[in-house]
Formats: sequence, structure tokens, C-alpha cells
Amino acid sequence: MSRTLAKDSLENIGKKIKLFGWAITVRSHGKIAFFDLRDRSGIIQIGGFSPSVVEAISALSQQDAVEVIGTVKKREEKYINKNTPLGEVEVEASEVKIVSKAEEVPFDMGGKDLPLELPTLLDHRSVSLKHPKVLKIFQVQAGLAEEFRNAAKKLDCTEIFVPTIASGATEGGADVFEIDYYGNKAFLTQSPQLYKQMLVPVFERVFTIAKAYRAEPSVTTRHLSEATQMDIEIGFIESFEDLLNALEFVGTEMIKNVSEKHEDILKEFGVEKPLVPNVVPRLTLREAQKIVSKRTGRDLSEELDLNPDDEAEICKWAKEEKKSDFVTITHFPTKKRAFYTMPDPKDSEYSLSYDLLFRGLEILSGSQRVHEHARLIERMKEKGVDPKNFGMYLMAFKYGMPPEGGFSFGLERVTMKVLELSNVREASLYPRDMERVDERFSKKEK
Amino acid sequence: MSRTLAKDSLENIGKKIKLFGWAITVRSHGKIAFFDLRDRSGIIQIGGFSPSVVEAISALSQQDAVEVIGTVKKREEKYINKNTPLGEVEVEASEVKIVSKAEEVPFDMGGKDLPLELPTLLDHRSVSLKHPKVLKIFQVQAGLAEEFRNAAKKLDCTEIFVPTIASGATEGGADVFEIDYYGNKAFLTQSPQLYKQMLVPVFERVFTIAKAYRAEPSVTTRHLSEATQMDIEIGFIESFEDLLNALEFVGTEMIKNVSEKHEDILKEFGVEKPLVPNVVPRLTLREAQKIVSKRTGRDLSEELDLNPDDEAEICKWAKEEKKSDFVTITHFPTKKRAFYTMPDPKDSEYSLSYDLLFRGLEILSGSQRVHEHARLIERMKEKGVDPKNFGMYLMAFKYGMPPEGGFSFGLERVTMKVLELSNVREASLYPRDMERVDERFSKKEK
Repeated sequence: MSRTLAKDSLENIGKKIKLFGWAITVRSHGKIAFFDLRDRSGIIQIGGFSPSVVEAISALSQQDAVEVIGTVKKREEKYINKNTPLGEVEVEASEVKIVSKAEEVPFDMGGKDLPLELPTLLDHRSVSLKHPKVLKIFQVQAGLAEEFRNAAKKLDCTEIFVPTIASGATEGGADVFEIDYYGNKAFLTQSPQLYKQMLVPVFERVFTIAKAYRAEPSVTTRHLSEATQMDIEIGFIESFEDLLNALEFVGTEMIKNVSEKHEDILKEFGVEKPLVPNVVPRLTLREAQKIVSKRTGRDLSEELDLNPDDEAEICKWAKEEKKSDFVTITHFPTKKRAFYTMPDPKDSEYSLSYDLLFRGLEILSGSQRVHEHARLIERMKEKGVDPKNFGMYLMAFKYGMPPEGGFSFGLERVTMKVLELSNVREASLYPRDMERVDERFSKKEK
Repeated sequence: MSRTLAKDSLENIGKKIKLFGWAITVRSHGKIAFFDLRDRSGIIQIGGFSPSVVEAISALSQQDAVEVIGTVKKREEKYINKNTPLGEVEVEASEVKIVSKAEEVPFDMGGKDLPLELPTLLDHRSVSLKHPKVLKIFQVQAGLAEEFRNAAKKLDCTEIFVPTIASGATEGGADVFEIDYYGNKAFLTQSPQLYKQMLVPVFERVFTIAKAYRAEPSVTTRHLSEATQMDIEIGFIESFEDLLNALEFVGTEMIKNVSEKHEDILKEFGVEKPLVPNVVPRLTLREAQKIVSKRTGRDLSEELDLNPDDEAEICKWAKEEKKSDFVTITHFPTKKRAFYTMPDPKDSEYSLSYDLLFRGLEILSGSQRVHEHARLIERMKEKGVDPKNFGMYLMAFKYGMPPEGGFSFGLERVTMKVLELSNVREASLYPRDMERVDERFSKKEK
């Protein structure tokens, strides 16, 4: 007998099927016993009514991998569970076999939520990910990556695979991981930034989903030491607005499509569907600061950036005034941005840069780039970056680099905000930070 | 006027359009001048007949980024160039403007091929990638990644994003890059292997395209220090054959679809369309060795693996006898495979492992895995791997790990063989090996 997935039981009412999956909750009532079986397609109730099957079910532990043979039955009206997609049916088992026995789980996995602190969940990540609610975070994440690629393809971008080992630090700053590369010094890239730019003269428009490494010696709810970036870079732009149009298209398409596809997951996380406007509100940093000042009374005239409270406030404004969960902020100060950011020709103190905010958080950053070779070298020197370490990068600017720019989404950050999680670590399967690589360093030292 | 892509000129005959792109060859004949313009969609001839335009074209250098305004003309029959997709038309320019001036290119980019040695091409990678033939390698590569994902989705796999920084070396061996991780020792993963296994109890079936790092201190035509792997892992398998069926499905689907989509590129590289059989021939290592021995007279009875000559020979056999460019080899010696490989229960000297060979090269490797926690620890100890460094990995085996297995394609290797390139570096945008990170180390020391 070949295997049937739980979700396909609905099409097999009255038929005998074989299921594989994991036991979640087990409930034994003497002469009858039940358990919920989870497979990759969903959760279904298994019932046992004969003595041998009741005995087999009663012997199950949470997370045992099992094989079930049984007949799909439509439940009586009064027993239908409307809270679950397969609540109309159950499988009356004729055979329940353990495929792989589980040890006792360190915490109860049967509830609706995992009522534990994040550090505990991360200490037991290989277990906590199996929780039916936790794993849905990563179904949403997979959907975001797919929708990002779909949107990038609509922009006619070519997918590129770029290196993560480089000879110079991407942004030229500190906070890089150094590696011993056959006796030479090399670094893990802080982003695919330089390589995607280098490929504009080759493919004009490129995208990549790539790793970004930041050795930031701080612990916040929004930073990871190893993150996943979704990057796009576009050449032959005719104006700064071309870039704003592109980023807003990708950002809204991706989030809207995933929210529609996974409406049930958003509901389970108690999250509203995002407000996606036809036109994303755009503000310069200065305009945004004025609005925040007016709304809060705080003086921001000396600030060079929006702090997290300001980001939250300007998003509140966009939601209230523009019915939008998105807002684009442009023209950040040139000195706050990396060497490749193009200063605004009208006022070089500010730059042709932007962030996309979504529900109070920056989920994207980018800019138009300096595309003239000589100007780029000047900018590097102003920023204290040594051009000698960027020979292959600079070469790309010598042979017809067109006006260009791009942007980058943090996949974990977008996931976090789509589901309104409180910590970006919840949106990373195996998060990396200064305290742990899977296991906590303090624990390992014991 | 908004931009038109070169390929859309065919739908704009008689109309005035604006083009952006790069000048390839420039030919000036006094009163008339021509150049080929490349944009992301193709190559089109631009003609100039008025004195000012002839002057502008004559002043162009190879690789200048240009803007052209002109009228699309159907060429006279005798001038039609049948060797190029846009050979039926040309654009009679009324305006040619340089958007970004190129320096003199270090070698001629106008020919059909780049008649230079690979080290020279890599020394100038940011230029050589712009060659219209070289960049097509990476259009094929993008297609392979897309078709891999499509096939993985048909197998109902969930996409996962797993870390590349780990606390233990994946295979437990040498050849790993070590990093200083906030004062702790960490490694770059040799493959996404362990993490994809850890996620089988979560999603059952997973896929990822991820980086793999190997600090192999050798230079061959088939190894990279940083490679891109396309990985799949499948749980609740009912037999070893389930895995063989899955890998052959993905391998043949991916290569067949890309070869059909990019038939023109294969032709340009002088490569035949691959022979894709309905049933991929399967041989155990021992069977393959006997066939090779018989065909070549070489005695392989003491060999534990196929060497590159053997791989070539067995592929020749598959092509001649089975009309197949693919052949699956199974049951490699247990001692030649990593600790997670399941020994064959019928003969533990051999393992439930496999390689997929394509046109003489191994493009995939994998196995059924040891899924029992206690047995896995035994296998680690036999292989000299310390279980203490794999705490999070081992945790996944305690809570109902079903029978499972998987496989991994090397994206650069598949690209290399689909286009019959002679060196895997040609199939990597910016290849990493022990001699270079973009620039050669020897050159940098100067």
C-alpha cells in the first residue's frame, strides 16, 4: 500500500489508507484511544477502538515517528473540530506501528503555543522547530523567498551566485569575520553588495539570495551574525525614482502574495493582513523627522537617522494617514552611508539612498550607487577604505558601468514582521549570534 | 521616450525607439559607420549615415555604455545576418550618446570566443564576464538553479535557509576553514548536510541551495574552495530505491529542461543535447568496475572508488549500451563514506550510497543515512568524529527521526558538464581556489 498524506484523507473517505507522521498529543480512555498525527501536509486525528490498537496508541510518546493503517471516517456532526483543516475526518486505525521511537521531550509540544522563553527554545532548537506553530514561521519564510524570486524575475533580473569569501571587507568597516584562507587573510562578506554591482555590466539586472555576515558584538532583537539577504541590482536606470518604483514593487508584491497564500498562518499568529497601498508613501528623512517631531514633540533636527521609536512612529503615521503598512524613507545623510552610495547632486550632504519600513521596522535598505570609477575612488578614500583591497570591484567600473542602484531585504526581518514576532531569532532556523552557534558557548565550556 | 530592449526591436519595425547597452564591435567606413549594441536581451546592429552620427559612432570604444535613439529598419535580404537572432533588423541611429565611457579593454571582446588562457580571463574576470559567450554560461547556471527548485517542489520539499557557520566540521575531517567567532572557534560548513538532516523531522522533505566550503590544498579542474550545492533530503522513505528514484528524477528533469530552454546556447558551445533515458542505468560500484575492467583490461578489484578515467569509461558504456548520458553508481565502500552514511544491512562493508555520473563526471553524491541515535554515535566514534561537537545535530535524532536520505548536486559542476567546459572555474562567476580570491595572491604580494 502506498502512502497517503494527511491532507488527502478528505478525498479518501471510506477507504483504507497508510499514513506516516509524528504523534503529537496522545489521549487514552481505557477502551478507546486517540492521537493526533502530524505529517508535512497537516494534522489528523487517529482513533483506536480494538484492544490491540488501543494498546499500541496508549504506548505512544510525543514525537514518536509512526506508521498507521486505517480507514478514513467522516466524523459525526457533533465531533467535527472546526479549528483544524482536517477536523471533519478521523482515521480509524487497524494498525499503529512505531517507525522511530522518541525520547521524552524536554517540554510539552502539544499546546497551541510553546510557553517558554526564546533562549530555552533555542537551546532545544532541534525539538522546538517541530512544534506545529513554530514550523509555520518557516513555511512563510520559504514563501517569501519564492515570491521575492518571482518579483525579481518580473523585473527581468538574472539570478547570480556570488562568493562569500572576499579579500576586502564589504563596507570597509570593522565587524567582519576574518578567516585564514590558505595562509592568507580573507573575510566573510557583509553582503553580496559589491558582487551584485560588479555583475550589472554583465547582466544589467541581477538578483541573489545570499548570506551576509556581521561580527557585531551586540545582542539586539533585530540583528543576526549570519543573515539571509535578498538582493537586487539594476543598471541603466534613468532616474532615482526607477529604483524606488522597483523596490516598492518587489516589497509589496512579495508580502501581499505571501500574506494571501498563508492567510491561515497569519490568523494563527493573530496578525492582520498587511495594508498594501497602491502608492507607497515616500518621505525624505527630513520630512519624516518633521512628522515624528510634530506627533511626539521630540526634537529630531540634530539626528542623522531614525531610531527604532521614530521608525515605529512614522509607520503609525503611514497607517493612520495613508492606510499603508509600508513607507519609503529617502535621502539619508551621506556620511551615514557606505562609500558606494551616491550623494544627491542637489545637496551632497544627503544621499540618493532609501529604507523601506514595514510595520515599524526597516526591512530593506539601498541606494543609487556611484558609478564613475574616479568618483568611487575618491569616495573610498573619504571613507577610509583602501582601494587596493577592491581591485576586482573597481575593474568593473572601468568598462562602461551604467547608472545603477539596488536594494536588499533581510529575509529573517521580513519574516519576523509578517508574523509580528518579537525577536529576529525566531525567524531563523538555527540563528547565529555572539552567544551561540547552536549551543551556547557558556554551556559548552562547562 | 521610454526604453526598448534590443529583442523587442522586431516588434517595432519602422518605429523610433530608444536603446541602452554596450558597444561591442565598431566599424567605421568614412561616410557610414556601424556598431553592435549588447543589452540584457540580445545584440543588435546600429547604423549611422548622417555625418554627426557617423562621428559619434566612430568615437566609440569597445564596452562604452551608450544610449541610442533611432528607427528600426528591416534589412534588405542580402544583408540579413542569419547567425544572430536579431539579424533581420538594424537601427538607423539619429542619436548616439555615451552614458559611461570605457577604458581600453585588456583584450579583444568582439570575437566569437575569448582566445586566452583561463588564468588570464580570471585575472580580468570583471571584463571577461562581459563577453557575450562567457555570460551565457551563467544564464544556463541560473536556469539550472531554477529547474532544480522546480523539481524539488514537485517532490513537495520545503525550502530551508541553513547556517554556514558551525561549531563542528561537517564531515569531521580536515580541509575546513576555521573562523574566529567572537573569540570562539567555529568552522565554515563543508555542506548543508547536517542541517538538512536536522530538518527532516520538521518538514519531512527539504531543499536548499547553499554554499559549501572546502579548504582542499590542491588545484584540480573540478574542485572549488567555495562551491554552490543544491541539496535535497527526504524522510519517511520506505526503501533505498525511493532515494534513487528521487535523485534521478531531479537530475534528469533539471538537465533536460535547461537543455531545451537554452538549446541555442548549447549549440553555440558546440554541445549535443543530453541523452536523457526513461530509465537511468543503475550499477553497484562492483558491477561498474567489472564493466570497466572488461572494456579496458584494467584490474579494479582492489579499488575502493572509481577514478576519473573509470567514470569516463562507465559513462561511455552507458551512452553506447543504454543511450544515456546519465548513470547511477551505488554501494560505495562504507569506509570511503562519511559517518552519516548507512551501511548496507546485507553487507556492511558497502553502504547505501550513490553518485550520479553525467557525461563522465560525478555531479551528485548522497546516501541513505543512519537514522538511529545510538547507531549514529557508534559510527561517529568509528570515524574519529567527536559527538560532543555535534550536540544540536544529535538532538534531532532523539525525537522520532524517520528513515531518510538525500543527495546533493554541485551547481558549478552541473553547469560545467551541460556546456562541456574544461574547468569548473569557468562555471563560477568569481571562483575561489587556493591561488586566488579574485586577484592572485602572488600578484597581490608584489
